[in-house]
Amino acid sequence: MAVPTPALVVERSALEHNIAVIGSTLPGARLRPHVKAFKATALAQRLADAGHVGFTCATVREVEGMAAAGLGHDLLLANEVIDADQLSRLAAVEGRVTLAVDSPLGIDRAAGAGVREVLIDVDVGLPRCGCPPEAAGALADQARKAGLGVRGVMGYEGHLMTIADRVEQTRRVEQSMADLLKASVDVGGDVVSAGGTGTYDINVWATEIQAGTFLLGDTQYGALDLPFEQAIFVECTVISRSAKGWVVVNAGLKALGMDHGDPSWNGGSVMYCSDEHTTLVADDHDAISLDDRVRLAPAHLDPTVARHEELWLVDGDEVIESLPIDLRHW
Amino acid sequence: MAVPTPALVVERSALEHNIAVIGSTLPGARLRPHVKAFKATALAQRLADAGHVGFTCATVREVEGMAAAGLGHDLLLANEVIDADQLSRLAAVEGRVTLAVDSPLGIDRAAGAGVREVLIDVDVGLPRCGCPPEAAGALADQARKAGLGVRGVMGYEGHLMTIADRVEQTRRVEQSMADLLKASVDVGGDVVSAGGTGTYDINVWATEIQAGTFLLGDTQYGALDLPFEQAIFVECTVISRSAKGWVVVNAGLKALGMDHGDPSWNGGSVMYCSDEHTTLVADDHDAISLDDRVRLAPAHLDPTVARHEELWLVDGDEVIESLPIDLRHW
Repeated sequence: MAVPTPALVVERSALEHNIAVIGSTLPGARLRPHVKAFKATALAQRLADAGHVGFTCATVREVEGMAAAGLGHDLLLANEVIDADQLSRLAAVEGRVTLAVDSPLGIDRAAGAGVREVLIDVDVGLPRCGCPPEAAGALADQARKAGLGVRGVMGYEGHLMTIADRVEQTRRVEQSMADLLKASVDVGGDVVSAGGTGTYDINVWATEIQAGTFLLGDTQYGALDLPFEQAIFVECTVISRSAKGWVVVNAGLKALGMDHGDPSWNGGSVMYCSDEHTTLVADDHDAISLDDRVRLAPAHLDPTVARHEELWLVDGDEVIESLPIDLRHW
Repeated sequence: MAVPTPALVVERSALEHNIAVIGSTLPGARLRPHVKAFKATALAQRLADAGHVGFTCATVREVEGMAAAGLGHDLLLANEVIDADQLSRLAAVEGRVTLAVDSPLGIDRAAGAGVREVLIDVDVGLPRCGCPPEAAGALADQARKAGLGVRGVMGYEGHLMTIADRVEQTRRVEQSMADLLKASVDVGGDVVSAGGTGTYDINVWATEIQAGTFLLGDTQYGALDLPFEQAIFVECTVISRSAKGWVVVNAGLKALGMDHGDPSWNGGSVMYCSDEHTTLVADDHDAISLDDRVRLAPAHLDPTVARHEELWLVDGDEVIESLPIDLRHW
């Protein structure tokens, strides 16, 4: 049986390799896998089976879906939520849910909606969410007064994930985490949550690492010197072949995350992507025919996975099973 | 009532303006709207109500969904399909379905699966699908021998859509369509299907225009001198605000098509997008607060719409109704 294209396919051996590799450096609770990268509870279950039972989420729907799948042991929504309706949904989740907060309003709303536990989100250099390190203690005080449990701090050094020089990267992660540890002293609690696939083995200051890309991979992270294998591809079919030297496959912008550029193909080069097509130039045009299958490696994992309803676990050309990508949307 | 964010919102007045404007140039069957741009049968119905009852599709699922919604009067799948299972699905659709073909194998497979009618897809200069113009006649002969009805030709001049100089654009569209008209003579039939929003008013050689973007708009087409209004936005909520001068909203790479770059915001500039966030710098930072709503205009319509489950028809801040984006996936 062949998968219907376009389709996400995941090589089982690479998936298992990646789980084993990260577990050897970050056993058990040292890894809090980030489900935004793969959005499938069936894959999260494999990580839980490997001993990583706490998870990071980016959306309310991810939290709801993980809890509904029996994976609600310890879910961190590592993102600010301000909307009262979304906070109420979060409070209604059965399981342990911890929310990131970085503002007085966020704390007020969370407490008012019945959220029970928070982390103080700290700006560690990425221009995104997080309070100034020196403001974290006062937010923690406010949260405790509002009846919230304050488990500690988080701070994502996302701007340092893809620095190729690992000595320089380590130096800068240490600086960044120094800010977070200072905030941690003021905030209290025992959680210092940070990190990602690009710093999983050098961020020794955080108590837990929020990595996600390691599981399936993309070409941006693949260009780094990390021990993970590319596990996921968009499988597509050659639907047109030109005597001018290109072929066209039936996967394009609606099957791929494009913010980091075109996908890669090990059989040649990508000319360009359009909505439902990618035009490819094969290294050997004579060797490629209509109806051939081609596997493209995505440039950015997370937004690619989020475009699909399911992924297919495969062993080379053998299809093992289909897994729903059940944590999509908001 | 406010829409839950992130959400696609469509301004009703702009939508109605765009339908009226295109209908004045391309009445009735002169426009064969391309549903890949908006993927919602409820919007297709509005176009049918305005007299455009034949539609263009890019995927088998779009064809199936349009027919299921009672819009199967005349559906053109303007794309090659080689896979036998997908061809069988197409043949099972109740309604008039015409498939693009550009190869002997595609014709064999289509006839074998029970597809009834085809157009010969011709390469008119865009490096994608389509046979050489001089090969079209022989393919038509083959198709008729295989029992297929041959309705004519199609050829998409996609490489000419966004040429800003309209004199130069018209000159090149005429050249491109000359190839298509030559093929049309060899092929026979009465359909010459081509065009798009960028050439809707200058492509007078095609019998019907496959435009889609005109309906909702994006910033790429918005930069051209066309009489359509930007109707669609991604509405999001400010969830974090930094004293350093930026705010963060809760829509990012998973809510946007990014192949044409960042979205635009009329209240300031976009610093960057990440998976579930966009970092914005407001023209007046003091004037923007947590929980404020922001509307981002997408750079590319089609892959943005395909990321969402529904869109909200609005009249300014008033929400009229939610419409399902029911033609997604494959």
